[in-house]
Amino acid sequence: MEQTLILIHCTDSVGLVSSIAHVLAAHQLNIITMREYVDEATKRFFARIICTGKSILPDEVRTELEGVLPKGAQVTVNPKEQKKLAILVTKEPHCLGDTLVRFFFHTLGAEVCCVIGNYDNLREFTERFNVPFHYISHEGKTKDDFEKELHRTVYHYHPDYVVLAKFMRILSPTFVAHYRGRIINIHHSFLPAFIGANPYQQAYTRGVKLIGATAHFVTDDLDEGPIIAQDIKPVNHTYTAEDMRKAGKEIEKAVLSKALALVIEDRVFVTGNKTVVFD
Amino acid sequence: MEQTLILIHCTDSVGLVSSIAHVLAAHQLNIITMREYVDEATKRFFARIICTGKSILPDEVRTELEGVLPKGAQVTVNPKEQKKLAILVTKEPHCLGDTLVRFFFHTLGAEVCCVIGNYDNLREFTERFNVPFHYISHEGKTKDDFEKELHRTVYHYHPDYVVLAKFMRILSPTFVAHYRGRIINIHHSFLPAFIGANPYQQAYTRGVKLIGATAHFVTDDLDEGPIIAQDIKPVNHTYTAEDMRKAGKEIEKAVLSKALALVIEDRVFVTGNKTVVFD
Amino acid sequence: MEQTLILIHCTDSVGLVSSIAHVLAAHQLNIITMREYVDEATKRFFARIICTGKSILPDEVRTELEGVLPKGAQVTVNPKEQKKLAILVTKEPHCLGDTLVRFFFHTLGAEVCCVIGNYDNLREFTERFNVPFHYISHEGKTKDDFEKELHRTVYHYHPDYVVLAKFMRILSPTFVAHYRGRIINIHHSFLPAFIGANPYQQAYTRGVKLIGATAHFVTDDLDEGPIIAQDIKPVNHTYTAEDMRKAGKEIEKAVLSKALALVIEDRVFVTGNKTVVFD
Amino acid sequence: MEQTLILIHCTDSVGLVSSIAHVLAAHQLNIITMREYVDEATKRFFARIICTGKSILPDEVRTELEGVLPKGAQVTVNPKEQKKLAILVTKEPHCLGDTLVRFFFHTLGAEVCCVIGNYDNLREFTERFNVPFHYISHEGKTKDDFEKELHRTVYHYHPDYVVLAKFMRILSPTFVAHYRGRIINIHHSFLPAFIGANPYQQAYTRGVKLIGATAHFVTDDLDEGPIIAQDIKPVNHTYTAEDMRKAGKEIEKAVLSKALALVIEDRVFVTGNKTVVFD
Repeated sequence: MEQTLILIHCTDSVGLVSSIAHVLAAHQLNIITMREYVDEATKRFFARIICTGKSILPDEVRTELEGVLPKGAQVTVNPKEQKKLAILVTKEPHCLGDTLVRFFFHTLGAEVCCVIGNYDNLREFTERFNVPFHYISHEGKTKDDFEKELHRTVYHYHPDYVVLAKFMRILSPTFVAHYRGRIINIHHSFLPAFIGANPYQQAYTRGVKLIGATAHFVTDDLDEGPIIAQDIKPVNHTYTAEDMRKAGKEIEKAVLSKALALVIEDRVFVTGNKTVVFD
Repeated sequence: MEQTLILIHCTDSVGLVSSIAHVLAAHQLNIITMREYVDEATKRFFARIICTGKSILPDEVRTELEGVLPKGAQVTVNPKEQKKLAILVTKEPHCLGDTLVRFFFHTLGAEVCCVIGNYDNLREFTERFNVPFHYISHEGKTKDDFEKELHRTVYHYHPDYVVLAKFMRILSPTFVAHYRGRIINIHHSFLPAFIGANPYQQAYTRGVKLIGATAHFVTDDLDEGPIIAQDIKPVNHTYTAEDMRKAGKEIEKAVLSKALALVIEDRVFVTGNKTVVFD
Repeated sequence: MEQTLILIHCTDSVGLVSSIAHVLAAHQLNIITMREYVDEATKRFFARIICTGKSILPDEVRTELEGVLPKGAQVTVNPKEQKKLAILVTKEPHCLGDTLVRFFFHTLGAEVCCVIGNYDNLREFTERFNVPFHYISHEGKTKDDFEKELHRTVYHYHPDYVVLAKFMRILSPTFVAHYRGRIINIHHSFLPAFIGANPYQQAYTRGVKLIGATAHFVTDDLDEGPIIAQDIKPVNHTYTAEDMRKAGKEIEKAVLSKALALVIEDRVFVTGNKTVVFD
Repeated sequence: MEQTLILIHCTDSVGLVSSIAHVLAAHQLNIITMREYVDEATKRFFARIICTGKSILPDEVRTELEGVLPKGAQVTVNPKEQKKLAILVTKEPHCLGDTLVRFFFHTLGAEVCCVIGNYDNLREFTERFNVPFHYISHEGKTKDDFEKELHRTVYHYHPDYVVLAKFMRILSPTFVAHYRGRIINIHHSFLPAFIGANPYQQAYTRGVKLIGATAHFVTDDLDEGPIIAQDIKPVNHTYTAEDMRKAGKEIEKAVLSKALALVIEDRVFVTGNKTVVFD
């Protein structure tokens, strides 16, 4: 039977679920799964609803829902299914490789519309998957010029999300503003531990027994955006900083992959500097 | 603000959430968290709802909800808070110890009304917590007589749940029938691996790299009841069967503790031979 | 400084470490890491030693070590570094994809010499990595004929290991005998739970809260060979059998990758039906 | 058969394993397990050896080993088996409870010689286990006076280790100096994330998806001592800071318990600001 996916976030008030459910029942839509959450701190209401039922006119349902919800409510009925991702890389291939293989075998749930590298070494690999690769070096340019060129190229593809798959340049607030809430980064540490550069060297020096990775939305503050997913792996005294880096790549790959799946399936909302994840 | 907890399970049909939410809104109850699930296989609907709002008459809300739900719906409004647990043990102390310490410090969320052992060796420990201990040996008795004595003692306390905290006697369907859906067992393996006796020896012989534990409701079929929680721990070739047993105790303790918390907080429903866990 | 890797397994006796260390010290080889294990059940001694020191003649060291060890001792000094893997697949791409990407970026530590599929659908992907693909259908042939053809093709490449990366045909003892101790399989369950076909359907039916995967050496007994690595992932009541299968693929991929790394780095010994893993 | 445990740390040089193994073989001691590690950064050698063999004179073996090892080598043969722990607490019972239950059932592998609290509320619980409890308030005293009183009481018991089981006062370098390398703390975060006070509030504010705990030796720098063990637990957006604190207690308990077991079994060496853990 046909499924309808509905996403809602709005100011909280008494009776929201009732109002929403009433509209759906009037359309003979049966709620199969409803996840909702009220952020008490910000008084925001979030819901992700899956219904089954006869064919509907999404616009009609959306308009009716907006009619019963607080002013300014954001309602999405059947969001875009095949989202487009622009992937930015530097030199490391593990996150890109995993994403392209999933794309190739139709298990990513999204389209990789382009890969942009500030080095050229991942071109050959990318092109084997018939995905366009753009080499935009940061060298010999101002940061501003580099980012303008980057933006021009990304913009051309109209991606839904920009994925920093081990892209090692820090993006300015100006660039981030173009894709607010739509840039996803994989950070090579269990944030907020080891903020900044060379976290595996830091982890090695500190003698930690676990290393981690964090996927997060990018905001103006480096490494401070809303966290989507995190995971860790045990290490021990025999690990050199290089061994930790190697083990870390496995976690980075897994965590980015998990975060992308959550975002692509419309399971992630942002509230303040946090995420609500209906997984 | 006062919170109301509502538990519902009933046959599924279109508009259930709407009907429920409508009743709650009419009472000015604001839904803070609503977890619901439809088991497509059995066409059953399950919901756990937390509302805030002015003082209510639970019976009134329950009656109204039953009025709008399919016939036979089970509705609980503000279930009993301080549940009573009868704990059955044999000789091993780790699960009992953990549970009694939580009880002592009011972090269990339930009362341990008695401990019954088919050996006497955990008496001293139990009594240090001012909990009555009953020694009911299985020796020199028929299984039927043993269980009758057991039942008489358990029954005296009217427990909400019977917890088999490493109780090593197999209970007959007759005994189980007295407490259907209310006996929780901790099994010393990652079920369904290593069903039956001496799972750590089996795990050792098989050379597994992980060992586990499973908390489940007890049904007539040994080790086959609905699973509430499971967890595992890595082991390696240096572990003897005894080392695995020792490591296993830590998992058993953690898994039983987790399962008890879920059950005590009314987060677990049973559907067929499975559980729905709103954690 | 140059590193020497030494692998030893032999019957246990008093003074083995002393004898070994004496030979190494005489060659001015400094033991950086020494992992050893005595399997009390089989009275076998296993060691993996990394030394630094001046250039050595591996054959000479090997001969000297054999001279001081019990008869029948197996000693390897500086084992082959770039091992060759023949990969057998059916239709599922996730394990193959991961392995080929690692091979492409030189992080596999081994060469994928060929991929053989009993379906043709992974050809295109494989060939994008310049790896030969052989399509050997099992249809319209006796098992014996199918395996002869398989063996002929595999044999041609002289692989060090045959990797069953979701190869869904059961291999006969005759085939297994050709590559004894050198066939690695990824099994889609946490063995020994859910032996045999369709484990995710079994897991779904049983209502487990964790699903797993197991990498093991293949022996004559299906799913009963020595386990190299295992891992698990939590699932819950909302997972369909299909969702479990999907989640399972991530674990299968991770566990096979881990097992291959261990084997490729000569960290795995087999003793009876178990493995000794110096990780 | 009798087992002998030997611990060694010393400056590294070529042939150490040979020299050690030679001494042991001469005494007809068979090496069952030998774990060794060379810290390249500090050029230190660490070994933990288990032998079986006929009755030995530990002092003789130790002297012989010292004779063949670099000057200043620290050799321990059959370290004290029943170590004594002094436990310092404030108000939270979970770590203390777990440790006392293990002590009571002889699974701690050590003796809890006393519990000292800067509040009096854990007295009743402690005394139920026949362990002396000392109430030493920090109120109305200088830090110096408080620590002198603490030290006097601790000193009286001559403990091998001082365990800070959620002791919430910061100890001065003067106090730490009395028990250098022998004070173990459980820190309520995945260090080095959330150093300092109220880590769960910090974790909540940051919106992390995992919380953790760290057991470490105490040095002059708060939260900066050598890490013994760490672990984590997943959390999500529904967790309040209080829920994180509650979940965190489970991790704290498990991590401290693991760290104590490692230390009690003589599996932990300190090298610089790190630990070598032969687990």
